[in-house]
Amino acid sequence: MALVVQKYGGSSVADADKIRNVARRIAAVKDKGNDVVVTVSAMGNTTDELIGLAYQLNEQPDGRELDALLSTGEVVSSTLLTMALEAMGYEAISLTGGQAGIRTDATYRRARILKVESKRVVKELEKGNIVIVAGFQGITEDMNVTTLGRGASDTTAVALAASLEAEVCEIYTDVEGVYTADPRIVPEARPLAEIGYEEMLELASHGTKVMHSRAVEIGELHHIPILVASSFTGKPGTLIHGGVSMEVRNKVRGIAHDLDVAKVTVVGVPDRPGIAAAIFEPLAAASISVDTIVQNASIDNITDLTFTVSRGQLDEVMEVISPIAKEIGARECVSDSTQGKVSIVGTGMLNMPGFAARMFSALSEKGINIQLITTSEIRITCIVDEGRVKDAVRVLHQAFELDVGD
Amino acid sequence: MALVVQKYGGSSVADADKIRNVARRIAAVKDKGNDVVVTVSAMGNTTDELIGLAYQLNEQPDGRELDALLSTGEVVSSTLLTMALEAMGYEAISLTGGQAGIRTDATYRRARILKVESKRVVKELEKGNIVIVAGFQGITEDMNVTTLGRGASDTTAVALAASLEAEVCEIYTDVEGVYTADPRIVPEARPLAEIGYEEMLELASHGTKVMHSRAVEIGELHHIPILVASSFTGKPGTLIHGGVSMEVRNKVRGIAHDLDVAKVTVVGVPDRPGIAAAIFEPLAAASISVDTIVQNASIDNITDLTFTVSRGQLDEVMEVISPIAKEIGARECVSDSTQGKVSIVGTGMLNMPGFAARMFSALSEKGINIQLITTSEIRITCIVDEGRVKDAVRVLHQAFELDVGD
Repeated sequence: MALVVQKYGGSSVADADKIRNVARRIAAVKDKGNDVVVTVSAMGNTTDELIGLAYQLNEQPDGRELDALLSTGEVVSSTLLTMALEAMGYEAISLTGGQAGIRTDATYRRARILKVESKRVVKELEKGNIVIVAGFQGITEDMNVTTLGRGASDTTAVALAASLEAEVCEIYTDVEGVYTADPRIVPEARPLAEIGYEEMLELASHGTKVMHSRAVEIGELHHIPILVASSFTGKPGTLIHGGVSMEVRNKVRGIAHDLDVAKVTVVGVPDRPGIAAAIFEPLAAASISVDTIVQNASIDNITDLTFTVSRGQLDEVMEVISPIAKEIGARECVSDSTQGKVSIVGTGMLNMPGFAARMFSALSEKGINIQLITTSEIRITCIVDEGRVKDAVRVLHQAFELDVGD
Repeated sequence: MALVVQKYGGSSVADADKIRNVARRIAAVKDKGNDVVVTVSAMGNTTDELIGLAYQLNEQPDGRELDALLSTGEVVSSTLLTMALEAMGYEAISLTGGQAGIRTDATYRRARILKVESKRVVKELEKGNIVIVAGFQGITEDMNVTTLGRGASDTTAVALAASLEAEVCEIYTDVEGVYTADPRIVPEARPLAEIGYEEMLELASHGTKVMHSRAVEIGELHHIPILVASSFTGKPGTLIHGGVSMEVRNKVRGIAHDLDVAKVTVVGVPDRPGIAAAIFEPLAAASISVDTIVQNASIDNITDLTFTVSRGQLDEVMEVISPIAKEIGARECVSDSTQGKVSIVGTGMLNMPGFAARMFSALSEKGINIQLITTSEIRITCIVDEGRVKDAVRVLHQAFELDVGD
């Protein structure tokens, strides 16, 4: 008898029939003699509908109130799924994030899990219950309800799996796993059988929307393998884990892309110590998440500093940055929100210089101009014109032979 | 500076515009320098919609799960109302029933409030917040969410008012107060300026749906006057309190009626000690709420025993009662669900025999046949054919000159 932790996304529980389908899947796991803990997202578009209601009443809704509001979506889906299981004759119980012991800090809208007090979950499992936990939410020390950020039911699931020392955490969604590239852009893209945590993190944080990054981080930290698979088909899905086999190392594993990119350049910055801090500390204070940062080599002690942010935050960024640019003596501050990002990801890539060269030449052969380049140990990212992003994904998928298979 | 506790019903917060309207009303009370605590029901038909969803998945949904599900409706309305107040520049905070310290027993669907731990509410008031509490719900010792029964947001409001020692609890709804009779049946019916707790209890438990009975009981117990008024008009409403003035005592105050009546008669019951208990104990064990009970004087030690229940419970009642009737040697057990109930209510009525006589003769003049009669200190109830209930209400409203005013 093992303990299985599963998560079902919003599209998997979008209506009564789909909820019954999920209940049957869970029942099959229970029938094999397993203990089962399940996390669910809100039904279909519930979260967006609730956000719409909130903005009708307040253009800048308070984080605490918005979190309390949004958390109801997962309470609804978790209680309905529990009722569906009970109708099939199974013993089950729903728990809110708070009841399940998901304790978080008080950073509303994107709270961090501080710990999981799994006493109640364990007690309910011991009683023979299938435990259905409302995803995406937690509770602070002061008993205020928080949410963990969009898509964070994944995080709830992996955190529960870690706390309960489950052997695997299964994330069921409406896609068949982690693809080599977005199959809507590259028809030849195929689901990977396995991928490393770090690779998945790079893909997720550079535009691949299958998994919530924090869930992958927690999985890596606690050595919980994560299976991503479809709740609608019987396909095997993708296993995210640490022990990826040697054969698939030192290969490009996937192409990520992201169109939500705005580029900001502070032009003619005097190159002296403390300048970068003067620019980025106020942005951090305004809770603006800066992505790629590039500073060119300086000429005559003058340099340009370029970074990217999500487009929705560009106005706010310019408001914060313009007076600072003036203060530090920069020439001007310009922005461009017609950019996109394309990345190749694979373990050990940076030690093999051939990858970067192949990427750049593949793009250049297609006449795609590279605006910015950044790299990590296992990723190379190019910022290109948004109109060329899809072409770039296609050409890179081909150049690195991702259609061929492991 | 006083503390004002208000409750707004579901029709008062049915959409964004109505929520804003309620927010403006609350703001006006706060502007006068009052502390304000507000309880809200779920928006419009939310509760019915959630119940509909539940029954799609389980014909007999578990009480705990159903309560967790239904409680979300009030969380949604309370957070949205809070956001509306914040958009107007007011400091406000929403609290769930649990956060507001509404501790209940674990009788799901109709939990009883054990105590109100108002520490958190007091703390938020001290910070200057308007406190918006999700109505209709509480939390058990084990942190499970309960609901208090349909319409029980009134009860939340009065319990909070009692615990906070408010001077008055204001219940805002879509009617202008407690009427002398249902104005859909009697166009001349008028809202009462005031009514006693006991009278209100009798009206509420005999079909007048303006107030939740338990709310009135708690108001009486803790001496909290309750104002029932419309959130849509500026009309004064009805004050439910203990010190009703002498002039309106010993008068019929209102006519209640109820069509949800089924009559059960156990015919030919041997009249010996223990018979009534033999019949009613199993009904109580099956959680069936028996309303009127009438036992005729026995002839030759044989009597008939008649009682009424709500129509939805009739099948269950017959299942429980039929074998018992056989066991105790009764001749048969018959039921009739074409009955209705009409009651006149007024303090001190039973000491004034004229009321009963006037009631019976008014009904008889209209050719309305009385099936059963029961009385309390302040109420006389007749069971009549359901087809004659409306006529009965109209004729009694006229006979007791309720259109004339106090």
